[in-house]
Amino acid sequence: MPPAETPIALPIPLLPLGFRVGGIHAGLKRNPSRQDLSLFVSERPATAAGVYTTNLVQAAPVAFDHDPAESLPGIVVNSGNANACTGDRGAADACEMAAVAAAALGVFERSMLVLSTGIIGEFLPMHTLREGIPTAARSLGREREQVVAAARGMMTTDTRPKLAGESLTVNRREITIAGFAKGAAMVGPRMATMLGVLLTDAALAVDDAQRILAAAADTTFNCVSVDGHTSTNDTVLMLANAAAGGGPLAGDELERFGLAVERICSLLAREIADDGEGATHVIRIEVDGCRNREEARRIARTVADSPLVKTAVHGADPNWGRIVSAAGYAGVSFDPLGLRLELNGTRLYASGGPLPFDAAEVSRSIRDHRETLIRLSFAEGAAGICFFSSDLTAEYVHLNADYHT
Amino acid sequence: MPPAETPIALPIPLLPLGFRVGGIHAGLKRNPSRQDLSLFVSERPATAAGVYTTNLVQAAPVAFDHDPAESLPGIVVNSGNANACTGDRGAADACEMAAVAAAALGVFERSMLVLSTGIIGEFLPMHTLREGIPTAARSLGREREQVVAAARGMMTTDTRPKLAGESLTVNRREITIAGFAKGAAMVGPRMATMLGVLLTDAALAVDDAQRILAAAADTTFNCVSVDGHTSTNDTVLMLANAAAGGGPLAGDELERFGLAVERICSLLAREIADDGEGATHVIRIEVDGCRNREEARRIARTVADSPLVKTAVHGADPNWGRIVSAAGYAGVSFDPLGLRLELNGTRLYASGGPLPFDAAEVSRSIRDHRETLIRLSFAEGAAGICFFSSDLTAEYVHLNADYHT
Repeated sequence: MPPAETPIALPIPLLPLGFRVGGIHAGLKRNPSRQDLSLFVSERPATAAGVYTTNLVQAAPVAFDHDPAESLPGIVVNSGNANACTGDRGAADACEMAAVAAAALGVFERSMLVLSTGIIGEFLPMHTLREGIPTAARSLGREREQVVAAARGMMTTDTRPKLAGESLTVNRREITIAGFAKGAAMVGPRMATMLGVLLTDAALAVDDAQRILAAAADTTFNCVSVDGHTSTNDTVLMLANAAAGGGPLAGDELERFGLAVERICSLLAREIADDGEGATHVIRIEVDGCRNREEARRIARTVADSPLVKTAVHGADPNWGRIVSAAGYAGVSFDPLGLRLELNGTRLYASGGPLPFDAAEVSRSIRDHRETLIRLSFAEGAAGICFFSSDLTAEYVHLNADYHT
Repeated sequence: MPPAETPIALPIPLLPLGFRVGGIHAGLKRNPSRQDLSLFVSERPATAAGVYTTNLVQAAPVAFDHDPAESLPGIVVNSGNANACTGDRGAADACEMAAVAAAALGVFERSMLVLSTGIIGEFLPMHTLREGIPTAARSLGREREQVVAAARGMMTTDTRPKLAGESLTVNRREITIAGFAKGAAMVGPRMATMLGVLLTDAALAVDDAQRILAAAADTTFNCVSVDGHTSTNDTVLMLANAAAGGGPLAGDELERFGLAVERICSLLAREIADDGEGATHVIRIEVDGCRNREEARRIARTVADSPLVKTAVHGADPNWGRIVSAAGYAGVSFDPLGLRLELNGTRLYASGGPLPFDAAEVSRSIRDHRETLIRLSFAEGAAGICFFSSDLTAEYVHLNADYHT
């Protein structure tokens, strides 16, 4: 039984020119009020880029989507079933899902990408998809309700759709980017993560699209962990259809566009942590003073994934020894005497020993804010990272002890 | 508030010749019925060996105990305070703790080893220890109740003392080994783990003692995880005082002795998982068909630490996709098509796809047994490992959201 819905956290973005989207209830989820099938479609050829899970056990759609061809007009997404660990039959099902969508939209069969999310190890209900996909194709549009429905069709135990967007003027043309994501659990990305879809009407060369998406995912989606469990299905796709006009972005324009993509991914990544299963706090972990970003990320992820840190935040408990000790087993070498720790702005630890602080006040600060800020400063170098996590609650346990049945 | 006590799981071991032990309530824990200070003392010179946490942030007693000198007659242990992240003052406190114990026992100051476990980042209440240690020294003895009291004095949120032992005849002499351990949480060993004390009246050369202890810890305590959080205080110490008579063990005798130490450590390690905080199941993870033991351990630990696997076991849910996907992100390369999975003896997954099985029956089997068996077979080589974990429950969250305050 998925948790109750919560309000959408961010403004609903404008849809870039030349795209239509939609989401319907096809029947993969039991509750008929919950969308489980979405389409993201470009009316014109689009450049596609993708980043994928590094899990060795990869779902059928991940294999299907690798190395997308140019000029792909769309993405078909189902929730409620991950089509993972389903062998040859799963691969054939992913292929047929794309074919059915292509037929419904009147495009070439290899022009659709496929995303699936939900339970692992069960075969897709193909009869449901064969009926549902043409219905979803008829629901496509550009209205706010269709944008929200498309985001809802990706959700599993997410309590709200995750949407973010931005418009910017580049070379006197208005360019729009819209982002969609789902998270909730089995979120512990390594390289790629969860499901994400970015649509833009900018014109992008294929290599630039891939580079920008990979760089943005690296500092945003790859810096989120709900439970440290890297999914079999993690994928982020970007479609750029050039409908805003103008030639492919280059130089400073491309740079500015890349920063906008990173901002949108960052908002969506934070949303994933904030809406982590059962979460009552989003935890922002800022690590600096490291030799390189990978070491900073490794320390941040180790702190983020410690059940002891996560439960301490849930209990509004400034039990900072759990944070310092998690940093110590991250597998990164550092001088413990150079480590300083702040929790919600209060300095707790430096030079190898505790600093006096008002525990009741720090506890109140954790309790009173949805976001908890952990700042770890090292004396090794100049690299840093910002990582998002969620707290660990009894609700997470209840949700996951009872998801399958 | 620590959880209620449960009955001791294993037979109370005999104490080896030439040792006296004891445990008292000195006042580090609030509840006067709970022991918080233990002594393990040899009446004659003993060979000492130790394995220690690999956490970079090491508690004061870990630094103090490194490279123990020969002829150390004893170990002083407190619970309720880890003396970790306490800087120079913590180092001085560990030193004084040893000195007070040495004075109370009338031995040389550098002849005591120190173990501490409990909250991180608070200074030891030295007045309590200065009073308590002489009292503990007066409580020493060889009776069952003193053996149990010594084990209790190491406990934090453990619900029962962890004891195991064995006697064996080696070269016509009766040799006895007794083991004591504590676990409960912040248990995610890398190399060394948690607190453990092994006493034996065998005669051992220093190098042999160290080698046997390190080998036994590697396949037992280093194959346990409750929450993946490697402690700042993990230490296992062994004292061998030769009171059984005879020269130092060698050859086959030494081999047999080493196997006995490993059996005792294995029982204690399983006890730690079984008594993991809030646990309702102990999870035995058998991994085979790997290229080497380190890869098998890495896969086992990744499965063991996945909150999704741990909650599925808690919910008696045969959601095997979580197990297969955890293996997939362990960072070990393998052929996914060569992976086979069994859960409580039922085959669920092979050749990249699901096998038909009776989900209700597997669920009932998980619900009806305290131990859940996960067996992962790979097609990479001949190495394997057995790893113990515990399930993740709402009780773990409650205990850890509220431990500090």
